[in-house]
Amino acid sequence: MGRTIYYTAMSVDGFIADPQGSLGWLDGLDHDPDGLLGWTAFDASVGSFVMGRATFDWLLSGPLADPTTPWPHRQPGWVLTHRPVERVPEGARLTFTDAPLGEVVAAAREAAAEADVWIAGGGVLASALARAGLVDEIWLSVAPVALGGGAPVLPAAAPLRLVQEGRNGDFAALRYVVGPQPS
Amino acid sequence: MGRTIYYTAMSVDGFIADPQGSLGWLDGLDHDPDGLLGWTAFDASVGSFVMGRATFDWLLSGPLADPTTPWPHRQPGWVLTHRPVERVPEGARLTFTDAPLGEVVAAAREAAAEADVWIAGGGVLASALARAGLVDEIWLSVAPVALGGGAPVLPAAAPLRLVQEGRNGDFAALRYVVGPQPS
Repeated sequence: MGRTIYYTAMSVDGFIADPQGSLGWLDGLDHDPDGLLGWTAFDASVGSFVMGRATFDWLLSGPLADPTTPWPHRQPGWVLTHRPVERVPEGARLTFTDAPLGEVVAAAREAAAEADVWIAGGGVLASALARAGLVDEIWLSVAPVALGGGAPVLPAAAPLRLVQEGRNGDFAALRYVVGPQPS
Repeated sequence: MGRTIYYTAMSVDGFIADPQGSLGWLDGLDHDPDGLLGWTAFDASVGSFVMGRATFDWLLSGPLADPTTPWPHRQPGWVLTHRPVERVPEGARLTFTDAPLGEVVAAAREAAAEADVWIAGGGVLASALARAGLVDEIWLSVAPVALGGGAPVLPAAAPLRLVQEGRNGDFAALRYVVGPQPS
């Protein structure tokens, strides 16, 4: 069976967006999509995704602000939200839901079949899923910048195991399995 | 000339102490003092250190709470503080000072001669020094745990360059030079 993987870039000090909600601090940094924990192989392994509403809204107001920009994900996705959505990007295969997290992940898992489920963020959703025991792995591309504040990568306590580490361009690449050290 | 190095352990999400001020989350984790970014070689390279008052107080109330525990550092140290100190551990070569940061680092640098100056923490002091351009490198031993909150490793914005990365026991070992990417 596939894994549920929280895959994200973050700053050295654990933020996924700066205090203004921007990802501009990633601009100009080198990251090879075919390198360690790169997007190409990850995307190929992903069969569905789960996304928080803030992340969806950020996509629409940022990278997809121009309505002619194509939706970037081929997989079906579930967006957790309690509020109505004004615009669904063309080509997006999205389910907007306020169902319990376990049900949402189960639906995404079923859609992914043997492939992985991508937890696309943000940190609040990833934390809720981690607390519910619904995150198998965390893949971090650590940007060479301290932000000093912003949106935390995972505002929850969780034991992890480092299973892969190295470098991709300007970034450190760290892969963790969620759970205690083997005794 | 030696470097000024902020050398510390932190959680994956960028905290150097948990919300209760404890380092108990480091207990039981494997870290080889002779491994990558390990203590043995680092300590040998250090000629003096600079420490914030909160870190000093934490040492005295924690690891050195038993007054028969020997002070662990052979090097002279400068402790930044505005308040009087009740107890100076036996064997400690400490200067307590509220002088400007630049003067304190200059004094520590002079004492270290060609050796490195260790910025022993905490994050508030390291951030003040980083803002003043007084930190050359940051060496991070990243523990396999998310804390979800606590004392931030570096509550300041700073561009970094990753110059070394790898593993030491259960930890990721990341070494950064402070400053922008070379263009």
